[in-house]
Amino acid sequence: MENLKEEVLQANLSLPKHDLVTFTWGNVSGIDRESGLIVIKPSGVKYEDLTAADLVVVDLEGKKVEGELKPSSDTKTHVTLYRNFKEIGGVVHTHSTWATTWAQAACDLPALGTTHADHFFGSVPCTRHLTEKEIAHDYELETGQVIVETFNHRNINPNHVPSVLVESHGPFSWGENASKALKNAVVLEEVCKMAYNTFNLNSERSDLDYMLLKKHFFRKHGNNAYYGQ
Amino acid sequence: MENLKEEVLQANLSLPKHDLVTFTWGNVSGIDRESGLIVIKPSGVKYEDLTAADLVVVDLEGKKVEGELKPSSDTKTHVTLYRNFKEIGGVVHTHSTWATTWAQAACDLPALGTTHADHFFGSVPCTRHLTEKEIAHDYELETGQVIVETFNHRNINPNHVPSVLVESHGPFSWGENASKALKNAVVLEEVCKMAYNTFNLNSERSDLDYMLLKKHFFRKHGNNAYYGQ
Amino acid sequence: MENLKEEVLQANLSLPKHDLVTFTWGNVSGIDRESGLIVIKPSGVKYEDLTAADLVVVDLEGKKVEGELKPSSDTKTHVTLYRNFKEIGGVVHTHSTWATTWAQAACDLPALGTTHADHFFGSVPCTRHLTEKEIAHDYELETGQVIVETFNHRNINPNHVPSVLVESHGPFSWGENASKALKNAVVLEEVCKMAYNTFNLNSERSDLDYMLLKKHFFRKHGNNAYYGQ
Amino acid sequence: MENLKEEVLQANLSLPKHDLVTFTWGNVSGIDRESGLIVIKPSGVKYEDLTAADLVVVDLEGKKVEGELKPSSDTKTHVTLYRNFKEIGGVVHTHSTWATTWAQAACDLPALGTTHADHFFGSVPCTRHLTEKEIAHDYELETGQVIVETFNHRNINPNHVPSVLVESHGPFSWGENASKALKNAVVLEEVCKMAYNTFNLNSERSDLDYMLLKKHFFRKHGNNAYYGQ
Repeated sequence: MENLKEEVLQANLSLPKHDLVTFTWGNVSGIDRESGLIVIKPSGVKYEDLTAADLVVVDLEGKKVEGELKPSSDTKTHVTLYRNFKEIGGVVHTHSTWATTWAQAACDLPALGTTHADHFFGSVPCTRHLTEKEIAHDYELETGQVIVETFNHRNINPNHVPSVLVESHGPFSWGENASKALKNAVVLEEVCKMAYNTFNLNSERSDLDYMLLKKHFFRKHGNNAYYGQ
Repeated sequence: MENLKEEVLQANLSLPKHDLVTFTWGNVSGIDRESGLIVIKPSGVKYEDLTAADLVVVDLEGKKVEGELKPSSDTKTHVTLYRNFKEIGGVVHTHSTWATTWAQAACDLPALGTTHADHFFGSVPCTRHLTEKEIAHDYELETGQVIVETFNHRNINPNHVPSVLVESHGPFSWGENASKALKNAVVLEEVCKMAYNTFNLNSERSDLDYMLLKKHFFRKHGNNAYYGQ
Repeated sequence: MENLKEEVLQANLSLPKHDLVTFTWGNVSGIDRESGLIVIKPSGVKYEDLTAADLVVVDLEGKKVEGELKPSSDTKTHVTLYRNFKEIGGVVHTHSTWATTWAQAACDLPALGTTHADHFFGSVPCTRHLTEKEIAHDYELETGQVIVETFNHRNINPNHVPSVLVESHGPFSWGENASKALKNAVVLEEVCKMAYNTFNLNSERSDLDYMLLKKHFFRKHGNNAYYGQ
Repeated sequence: MENLKEEVLQANLSLPKHDLVTFTWGNVSGIDRESGLIVIKPSGVKYEDLTAADLVVVDLEGKKVEGELKPSSDTKTHVTLYRNFKEIGGVVHTHSTWATTWAQAACDLPALGTTHADHFFGSVPCTRHLTEKEIAHDYELETGQVIVETFNHRNINPNHVPSVLVESHGPFSWGENASKALKNAVVLEEVCKMAYNTFNLNSERSDLDYMLLKKHFFRKHGNNAYYGQ
């Protein structure tokens, strides 16, 4: 648990270093799959003041099991992702400029280049509009549900496309652990910026050839990956 | 008074840290509501040279009651805001890039996402054109008047929408105190940038659903707020 | 002369601090009007290596009178400005991103807001296309001539509009001395960025009201200025 | 060889300093033309951890002749460039934001200003689409081949236009040595940004006059260059 806390702490502290957050607008969590316990940032605490001891531990029902502080107001969304995406070990939520732009525009992020293909095997989807009832009911839980629904209905593998754009809100990213989830959040921000620019320059562009998408994604992922050491 | 000076000093020094100013293009003030005295930045003094002793104290008529230096040339605008918006304790004026862009474009800033809704309960209004007579008469006072007129005529609560865009000029933000006013100025700049990008990507977007706007604003404000500790 | 060299050195060293240059793409000069001697950056020398002793002194014919190194390849343009704009004491040339954008677009920069009006009393003009003959003849001299022609033909006072956009090339700014010329170059870059954004958001905008332009310019300049101490 | 390694190391370390890379998305190589040996960055190693001893040496067949680590996954593209462009001594590949934007947009980068003309004697070409067969066959080799084909078919001198945009992928730059290749990569990024902005402001612009292009390019290159010391 102490290792997980340290990893979640470092990933939270990396948010301002990668220019993904203004004030306290972002949070990272990690899960220990054996115990089913989740470590998450406390709500509204500044990154520069954050210590491992401030982190909050909740279970897969979202109930606090350890910690002095209140967990992130987005905790139920994180929990819903861990309950449904069984292989993920870390979740990141931010309001980073470019990913939030695509979420506010309510557009899927298409795979326009190999930078995208190296990390996301196809478009990063944007969720549907939440209904008034969903917003009124249990908002953060429903936010998680609509993400899961998006991946299920559109038959997208969350391990191959480890990010989503929540309509009118912003991005969530995930990965094997908190540090890989953070990395995906950084990549998402960069490819959102480049896709925005690409469309401004040439509005006729659309998704990469499937062959090139596959080539790049599996150059970096899976058994035949040959990128890195 | 020394506490207020220190707070106003720190808020002024935060302007360059948050990249809201070029040279000396920004000023922060704070008011002590009991005495009706306002502490404000002196005109044209560099942030790196500014000390608490340089700050100027004026009353609610805009008359200097303490200080060696001339107060900000925008002092009458600040004073007019304090006289009319009775609950505010701090005012910030800058020419920050993105908020000034919206002011120069003479457009209201719509609430396109939850980042906006977390801080502003609806559009941030842009004032009407000043008449030649208003410009010639008492320009900085009239700037304050047109802000107040905008909130009154459009029935906007300045505590719920703590910023304005002055047409062809730039933003003013306010809050309970100087430090919260500064925070609102930072948020305004960020949501102006994201709204600009959103419109470039999808010009069909308009205001958030009222339910989502309300959900997010009151998640962070008022008696039922549950964000933070 | 040593004072002038020190001032010109500091203004050159400020170019990278204000993010106006990539590599060695910018130069500042200053003139001593009594002796008619101009101090200018040597060509292609990195700012981090530059010392006062490296600066080159040329006369108003552009002839080197002191210095080991070759002067900036743009020296004749600087000299032409000093010969024709009798009240200026410093000149800055850069390829800064946003001013170069307007120069490459071959557009005058309109006064869209009070930030512009505070520093430039009207549009910053873009020069006409140089003819093939002018390019072939004495290119850097002709660049200076076309700037002077622009101000003369369009009856613009170079003391009131202390910058120009050279078509397909980039900006030149000037001022009473090297340090004020540098300040104008910084302001030009910022107002170019904001005007670009403003047009992207609302392509219908045009020049400020003359009253507002005048109000802001003379709030900061001339005998009745009341900005600053 | 140790000198070459040191130069290649420094050029790789300069990638993050010039904001050309996210994570490990860029690599620099250099060649010793006498021995035909190429020094290149190892795959996926962080710049902050990289030492000269980590660099990999390969021959002009792409076979590793020295080093513990696997060379960059883009090694065959580098090798193909060295085999075909006989005078180049260094190659840089990145996914830098603005050059990648143009590559994703599948547009040649036109010479819209003198900043471009100072470094590239005409448009920087974008390669054609790779066929499915080329992607499936020997992808990184084919990437090199399509670059060479582009320069040959369009009769472009790679010494005069030392960069290319690989369609849907990103830029490659080169030069006499690794340090000059890096410099060209920095310039390419800057002119890509300014050309994008220029087109957004005035979509009617096209290539510079040939006279102005020639004037600027040969002011900095060849026997009659007069820029610098």
